[in-house]
Amino acid sequence: PGFTTAVLQYDRRIRLNSMLIDSSNVLKRPDLHRMMEMAAQKLRLMGGTVELVDIGEQELPDGQTLALPKVVTAQFGNDPNKHTVCVYGHVDVQPAKLEDGWATDPYNLTDINGNLYGRGASDNKAPVLAWIHAVEAYQALNMELPVNVKFVIEGMEETGSNGLDAMILAQRDTFFSDVDYIIISDCGWLSRRPALTYGTRGNCYFYAEVEGPKQDLHSGVYGGTVIEPMTDLVGILGECIFSGKILIPGIREAVAPLSDEEWRMYQDIQFDIDNYKNKIGVNELMYSNKVDLLAHMWRYPTVSIHGIEGAFSDPGTKTVIPAKVTAKFSIRQVPNMDPAMVKKQVTDYLHSVFAKRKSPNKLKVTMVIGAKPWLADTQHPLYDAGKAAVKRVFDMDPDLIREGGTIPIARTFQDVTGKSIIMMPIGGFDDGLHSQNEKMSRYNYIEGTKLFVAYLNEVSQIKHTSV
Amino acid sequence: PGFTTAVLQYDRRIRLNSMLIDSSNVLKRPDLHRMMEMAAQKLRLMGGTVELVDIGEQELPDGQTLALPKVVTAQFGNDPNKHTVCVYGHVDVQPAKLEDGWATDPYNLTDINGNLYGRGASDNKAPVLAWIHAVEAYQALNMELPVNVKFVIEGMEETGSNGLDAMILAQRDTFFSDVDYIIISDCGWLSRRPALTYGTRGNCYFYAEVEGPKQDLHSGVYGGTVIEPMTDLVGILGECIFSGKILIPGIREAVAPLSDEEWRMYQDIQFDIDNYKNKIGVNELMYSNKVDLLAHMWRYPTVSIHGIEGAFSDPGTKTVIPAKVTAKFSIRQVPNMDPAMVKKQVTDYLHSVFAKRKSPNKLKVTMVIGAKPWLADTQHPLYDAGKAAVKRVFDMDPDLIREGGTIPIARTFQDVTGKSIIMMPIGGFDDGLHSQNEKMSRYNYIEGTKLFVAYLNEVSQIKHTSV
Repeated sequence: PGFTTAVLQYDRRIRLNSMLIDSSNVLKRPDLHRMMEMAAQKLRLMGGTVELVDIGEQELPDGQTLALPKVVTAQFGNDPNKHTVCVYGHVDVQPAKLEDGWATDPYNLTDINGNLYGRGASDNKAPVLAWIHAVEAYQALNMELPVNVKFVIEGMEETGSNGLDAMILAQRDTFFSDVDYIIISDCGWLSRRPALTYGTRGNCYFYAEVEGPKQDLHSGVYGGTVIEPMTDLVGILGECIFSGKILIPGIREAVAPLSDEEWRMYQDIQFDIDNYKNKIGVNELMYSNKVDLLAHMWRYPTVSIHGIEGAFSDPGTKTVIPAKVTAKFSIRQVPNMDPAMVKKQVTDYLHSVFAKRKSPNKLKVTMVIGAKPWLADTQHPLYDAGKAAVKRVFDMDPDLIREGGTIPIARTFQDVTGKSIIMMPIGGFDDGLHSQNEKMSRYNYIEGTKLFVAYLNEVSQIKHTSV
Repeated sequence: PGFTTAVLQYDRRIRLNSMLIDSSNVLKRPDLHRMMEMAAQKLRLMGGTVELVDIGEQELPDGQTLALPKVVTAQFGNDPNKHTVCVYGHVDVQPAKLEDGWATDPYNLTDINGNLYGRGASDNKAPVLAWIHAVEAYQALNMELPVNVKFVIEGMEETGSNGLDAMILAQRDTFFSDVDYIIISDCGWLSRRPALTYGTRGNCYFYAEVEGPKQDLHSGVYGGTVIEPMTDLVGILGECIFSGKILIPGIREAVAPLSDEEWRMYQDIQFDIDNYKNKIGVNELMYSNKVDLLAHMWRYPTVSIHGIEGAFSDPGTKTVIPAKVTAKFSIRQVPNMDPAMVKKQVTDYLHSVFAKRKSPNKLKVTMVIGAKPWLADTQHPLYDAGKAAVKRVFDMDPDLIREGGTIPIARTFQDVTGKSIIMMPIGGFDDGLHSQNEKMSRYNYIEGTKLFVAYLNEVSQIKHTSV
């Protein structure tokens, strides 16, 4: 009871860190190292036991190696009579450029009408800071933490968490040995109603490269005599999906059927279709009813073609026959798909439709990411504690939702540590992750901090036997 | 007789101008203005009557306007008893970057084993200079020019010759009124044998834009609920061409049938298929016999997909659903295709295949270039003079060839002035126009200059009645 009021007093102290580092840009790597050092220093100053864990190097496509940003681990409290939670977060961000269509400088946090705009504001800076503030809140009020709190903070999430899997495996019997529960807040609500997340889709990301002439050719001079790689590539991509139906054999067959229970659960979830349409600016979605939409967002696979490397992509005209073109596309993974099987299905299918073209060009299909989906048991005490904390702070029940995106680390934590995981989002449904004008509202930031404070208290009351 | 020997003495004076300006880069426009001024000054110093003709402004996509580079006109001699030829050339170049795969700096002319490497070396700097040297050769030897020689030199050829059509139309009854023949050397040989060119393909260049959400979306979060513009675009592009066969109704039907005479002519042309394959680095071409290859290079249409703007085109992975994507593709035009008809055929067809997808996205098809093909009469005295000049300099008969690329200005000269046109290339068959490592050999540059000197002499002997 006392702490909710107390946390309110703490409100005005919280602030967002404006140092936003795009982890995909290798030129910014020194800044990323500084960012990790800043995060470590912050946790040290709060009295945590902090380590900057070296996770080795990254190999670049040109063969050069580059040091990965260290992973920050921290520990607050080590009372063996208390539960120990481990909070995971990341401090790197997606790329962003003002000219992509941002209304404000994406790298300069800007407060407009209670919304804090900036790249990474919601993904994942504010949630990480809210967890830090939750610990600070107990400290500021001279209250003992009800559970031991550990942090794992990385700087490569946006480019595939390179090195983190190995680090978790290496520290399974040390840093992670006394962890009871893992908490991830790298996601968002579905509506204005708070939510707990119990599943994510995985992702198989493919490169399909078609190579023909040894160099780009003038389309006037050579057009008509060579079989163009771009024509081949567009042709085979066009056979992968039609109006949302995946045409690659075996993909749809592997998907777990929608149960009646799920159907009923989806029916009860608060989801405003018109609002969703307005937000993304379309008149018509792939499906017109709520259950189909939620199911295809969360528990069915989808194919997205992201773009083509090697072709002409600038404004204006160029009369070129590109010599080597590489399509980037991905298939979101759901139970019971298996990335190794999907790799084979996609590779075999693309080669078979390519073979029908009888092209002398060379096709190479590579799966560069193969991340499994993750699914939790919503009946677990960890989720009961989450429901109670939401009730306490927001005075309502949370929606139980899944996430269409991929948080591969959830699956790794589950597979390596065997511990239970909960995803507890505080980001708004309209925060624009990975998109232009990403933001975090002050409301979600502050109430989210309170939620975390309350949650630590609820988790402390889970009976040890039920772990 | 005397002048061939004399020209040999002139050999060592010739040199390539290393100022190579990419006309598509608006930031380089001041350099392009300087380039035109340099060309004008060169012709002035030779004693020509020179004008820098203002051709107005260009409107950029953002609505800004930018002064077009002036067109240089020059005149040497105005004897009404002589024929007057007008040489057309351009001094702008295609874009080039060292990292595209150049072995040498593309903007620094580099001599390696008698080849002069640099962007624009063959397209179109050396031919323009060779014409200038041809006039200089007569001057250096104190020989009177056998014909009056005019020059039209522009700086926007590589981006569509903006403003030139209007300038030609405006000066039809002034600068062009006394011109008898127009000579263009903006093309190349087909083999080591010299050639005269009697036709070019035109080009209809299209943008197909598919627009969906109002901004880019995260493919994990939104994938499965929105109909993705990229899927639609790839799908409709894939229905335009299959293994070299154009699927757009009406296109193939409009093409003039291959005559027996053409077939025989193509049979006699020197064309080394293996060499051609090696040059472009492919094992297999669209056709395996010479006549089919030449015909599809010169007198059949072809579809090239150049690339897609608005999608993810960088190295690495990005999990984005692009909101608006624009395919750039072009169809080479041949007799008897009509660009206005092709525009309708392409637009109607794309909309019809798009309609079958029942997508809520918006498709917009725009034809941004619509250039007609050009075809000359090889029995014209202008071509007889060309054959004689080739015989004189190279001691062999030229191949009569066509050009797969587009030189829209040929068609404009023909339509506006009604004068006969000849294309007289001096570039090598392996010069790599618009490609990496473009070059001009010293051999072609020097012998080409001699060819022009000889040609002026041959043209002077055309009987006036035969014009």
